[in-house]
Amino acid sequence: MKKEALAMIFTELEKPFSATPVNLPNLTSGEALVEITYTTICTSDLHTFYGRRAAHTPSVLGHEVIGRITRIAEEGLTDFYGDKLKIGDLVTWSVYAHDHTGMMAAKGIPQKSEPLFKYGHEQIKQNDVLSGGFATHCHLRKGTDIFKIPSGISSKEAAPLNCTHATIAGAIRLAGSLTDKNVLVIGAGMLGISACAMSKFAGAKHVFAMDRTIQRIENSTRFGADRGIDANLSLEEILSITQSLGGIDIVIDTTGSASAMEKGLNILNIGGIAIWVGAVYSERNISINAESVVRRILTIKGLHNYSPEDLAFAINFLESTHLLYPFESLVETDFCLAKLDDAFKSANKSGKYRVGITPN
Amino acid sequence: MKKEALAMIFTELEKPFSATPVNLPNLTSGEALVEITYTTICTSDLHTFYGRRAAHTPSVLGHEVIGRITRIAEEGLTDFYGDKLKIGDLVTWSVYAHDHTGMMAAKGIPQKSEPLFKYGHEQIKQNDVLSGGFATHCHLRKGTDIFKIPSGISSKEAAPLNCTHATIAGAIRLAGSLTDKNVLVIGAGMLGISACAMSKFAGAKHVFAMDRTIQRIENSTRFGADRGIDANLSLEEILSITQSLGGIDIVIDTTGSASAMEKGLNILNIGGIAIWVGAVYSERNISINAESVVRRILTIKGLHNYSPEDLAFAINFLESTHLLYPFESLVETDFCLAKLDDAFKSANKSGKYRVGITPN
Repeated sequence: MKKEALAMIFTELEKPFSATPVNLPNLTSGEALVEITYTTICTSDLHTFYGRRAAHTPSVLGHEVIGRITRIAEEGLTDFYGDKLKIGDLVTWSVYAHDHTGMMAAKGIPQKSEPLFKYGHEQIKQNDVLSGGFATHCHLRKGTDIFKIPSGISSKEAAPLNCTHATIAGAIRLAGSLTDKNVLVIGAGMLGISACAMSKFAGAKHVFAMDRTIQRIENSTRFGADRGIDANLSLEEILSITQSLGGIDIVIDTTGSASAMEKGLNILNIGGIAIWVGAVYSERNISINAESVVRRILTIKGLHNYSPEDLAFAINFLESTHLLYPFESLVETDFCLAKLDDAFKSANKSGKYRVGITPN
Repeated sequence: MKKEALAMIFTELEKPFSATPVNLPNLTSGEALVEITYTTICTSDLHTFYGRRAAHTPSVLGHEVIGRITRIAEEGLTDFYGDKLKIGDLVTWSVYAHDHTGMMAAKGIPQKSEPLFKYGHEQIKQNDVLSGGFATHCHLRKGTDIFKIPSGISSKEAAPLNCTHATIAGAIRLAGSLTDKNVLVIGAGMLGISACAMSKFAGAKHVFAMDRTIQRIENSTRFGADRGIDANLSLEEILSITQSLGGIDIVIDTTGSASAMEKGLNILNIGGIAIWVGAVYSERNISINAESVVRRILTIKGLHNYSPEDLAFAINFLESTHLLYPFESLVETDFCLAKLDDAFKSANKSGKYRVGITPN
């Protein structure tokens, strides 16, 4: 029997992906099969492949992914909003499948449910291979929140939705109302660019983007940042810039750099909130003056992944702003699936916001 | 002319207070004069007097204070709820007077308004002496939120309201709903005891009190703590106790100890919240693994002082629970105002929850 799908299996750190023909799965209740139209290589895929964080092998990496539904389980399936899904729908989906009636979902942190099926992260067991974005197909499991991609949005600009933009939507939710607030985004990579644009979309007054790379700082101003800040400046120099415009009420750290997060806390206004989303790899501990946190009434919130509602918000955001900001330009180059090795090398070396993968 | 008031002026670290006769002030709009009925020595008074934190001198210390209104400015005055105040009312008041129309009040952190008049902390200027609790009278300034003490509550048990209990009310507010949540209170001193009782009052499921002193741990169980934890236990031992009951959702640190706050973060459940209120003196920096904060979706909130709404909540709490918990027993001894030097020595050495000061 001809095997109808192809998966690029991650077997070992920095070793070529193994192009593996795979049978399409039989679907059970609550499941669907999508034919992948576009995947972007997330920085966390790079962290995994280059050993900067632990991961099980073998697996199919890739979770910033868009596809078209080709099969649906017999009973039918609905999207996040309860609308019926049909063959041919272009969709994205939550990076994890979870039990919507579980304790963690009730607590508002469904991304920490147990068990959790995480696309692009699962160790392959027996013939259950199609769980990631670097393949021709993905097998959507029961408990996955599925969203139709609004018309007019390309797969290429939509691919980062279910990781980058949804995580930033979670950060914006944790920040609370941004009306009349000034936001400092630390790190102007893909997450940072999203944070600039989404902060502005959510009503922030002034958005500052801080990075060590001048080109990235400049590019952030095409995505909603009102002003870039060179991260190489001293704290005093940065404060003289921000305080002239009312100081910083919200810091969103996308870098995971200990020194950047420390600087962020020192920049915050009294009553300010720091949201940390970048610290998903090993770094030195952060050194915090607790008396300063207390006397300045600061809040620090860590966020990993997001809730389905955040992904819904991210899609609304992209639909509302994709004509305003050149999101497609952030996927600076693409490779076909068969050239995944080259794509990873390119993504790891180039400092590109995103490198994309097309099926053919 | 006979001077009608007496203030015990703090002039120098660890030096005897200077008993100073003072004229009663002329009141202007929005002001009142109270005759003090009871003051408790707050730990922060001890920090100031013994040089563990910086303070201006000369000043009249004491801010956990209750008094009876003896004069009101000509136009009359209303309490926090808008009800008319009258001569003879037994009242407490916010530890600070602030501009209710200012930017910080609008931000929900009125305690950080500028300017801020802070009872028990102000440097004496000219003849403006009656600003603290260690005196026969206190001059209430415009912008002070005044609250009547509900009947049946003694001045002695009410004195800690406008610092201890109101600060904990702020911490409980920052923690959000406590329903079905487990709370760990670190430090079972006055703040910690209040946190145990108020967490239970606010609907917490299990309340744990952690301290290094067995007698304090035991006493906390008279004030709502379901279980005491010896702070000398290892992290693993503590987790084995807390996790058998569902783990810890909220940590309230009242100690300001760096190692205690670090331990608190490590004890928290995924999605947990740490509220820091104790760190109001100089200590070593806290060392935090940011990746753990991110992956475990933790929140850290610092709080210094409180909003008037918190003091309102604290008074409701005391009114509702003062027959349930023996709050008066926490003021373990008292001295008359003239013996303030002895009272400070006693409070600093004894480890008593509170030492009280009576007018005569």
